[in-house]
Amino acid sequence: MVARVRSAPPSGLPGRAEPTQGADVTRERLLQATHELLFARAGAEPSVSEICARAGVNVSMVSYCFGGKQALLAALIRRTTAGVVEELEALAALDLPAEEKLRRHLAGVVRNYLRYPYVNQLGERLGHGAGQPAAARTTAVLAEPMVAFYATLLRDDAFRDVDPVYLFCSITGMCEFLFAARGSVEATLGGPVDDAAVARFVDHTVALVLHGIKNPDRSPA
Amino acid sequence: MVARVRSAPPSGLPGRAEPTQGADVTRERLLQATHELLFARAGAEPSVSEICARAGVNVSMVSYCFGGKQALLAALIRRTTAGVVEELEALAALDLPAEEKLRRHLAGVVRNYLRYPYVNQLGERLGHGAGQPAAARTTAVLAEPMVAFYATLLRDDAFRDVDPVYLFCSITGMCEFLFAARGSVEATLGGPVDDAAVARFVDHTVALVLHGIKNPDRSPA
Repeated sequence: MVARVRSAPPSGLPGRAEPTQGADVTRERLLQATHELLFARAGAEPSVSEICARAGVNVSMVSYCFGGKQALLAALIRRTTAGVVEELEALAALDLPAEEKLRRHLAGVVRNYLRYPYVNQLGERLGHGAGQPAAARTTAVLAEPMVAFYATLLRDDAFRDVDPVYLFCSITGMCEFLFAARGSVEATLGGPVDDAAVARFVDHTVALVLHGIKNPDRSPA
Repeated sequence: MVARVRSAPPSGLPGRAEPTQGADVTRERLLQATHELLFARAGAEPSVSEICARAGVNVSMVSYCFGGKQALLAALIRRTTAGVVEELEALAALDLPAEEKLRRHLAGVVRNYLRYPYVNQLGERLGHGAGQPAAARTTAVLAEPMVAFYATLLRDDAFRDVDPVYLFCSITGMCEFLFAARGSVEATLGGPVDDAAVARFVDHTVALVLHGIKNPDRSPA
């Protein structure tokens, strides 16, 4: 994957073959335009008219295709998070040591926030706006499977006793921040978050977490 | 400090005695109202009329007191972050082991995001909207002094070789997420993020970071 400076266009959305029919084409364009605007604006929410202008469609199309802006945003969250749960299940099923599963998982989480740095903030705001059921839904998509994955891993005696919900908060937060606050981080680093910086950050994150939760009573590997 | 569920009013802003003069009273009311709305809405930006309605002042007062909404938001960021740098300098000057300084610092960072969970997202959006100078300004307020603090601490041979900029990203992200995504986390925890949950999260965070950056070649303390 190629890392990008903020001004360059982000990647396309995952998970759909190029649609050929009218309304599906418009839906895809609207989702992609919303993704690009959220990426470019550090998560600040674009207006319906901005989304439609970027997608090159009439402003009535958000309502026609999704029923409204909130439903469009919710569909974007589902699209960007759908693959995460599948990847987690595939990783859990592999016959690998627990440390190696966690290592691969962390690299995936970092690279997911590289692509979708806005998704947690957006999900939280939507969940708040819609009340508890939507918050529970966002949670069901990512938090619950991740916490379950950690709970299983943490049974391995390679690790010390750690709360899986708090570990979920730590890992999500530490993998997200570099990208959610990319403008500030790039100013602090004195340069762009490029491929090399992302690769070093993956190594840093893996080392921090694996040392951080290692069972000190087990002899070093 | 008393932890709050999201529906309860957040704490007052730090750093100013109760003003007595007209324009100063209005400024304080506007800052406090903006803080409360950002806290209650998971960081979603309130409108000028919502801020003024909550503050109980005329809608022209944002322009009169601050020159505009962006300047009001920038003043709120300065207010909520001003004390952080002073606390950091006071902590750096104490005659304490490096681990103990880091332990106290982490507890402070967690409790800062408990009070101001919206501040990083807001700073990033403002910095983006205003272009590089504002991003650099936000960075100057928090990132640069924190990175310098870590760089000094990391010279202690209690710690392994860690990049202080990446450590800043990890610590800020892991301390922020629980509160920035409070709605989702409370749904996952199955209960409110109350005093006891915050205290356990502080212990969890301190242990994760101290184990995570400990020098493995130094004999255990």
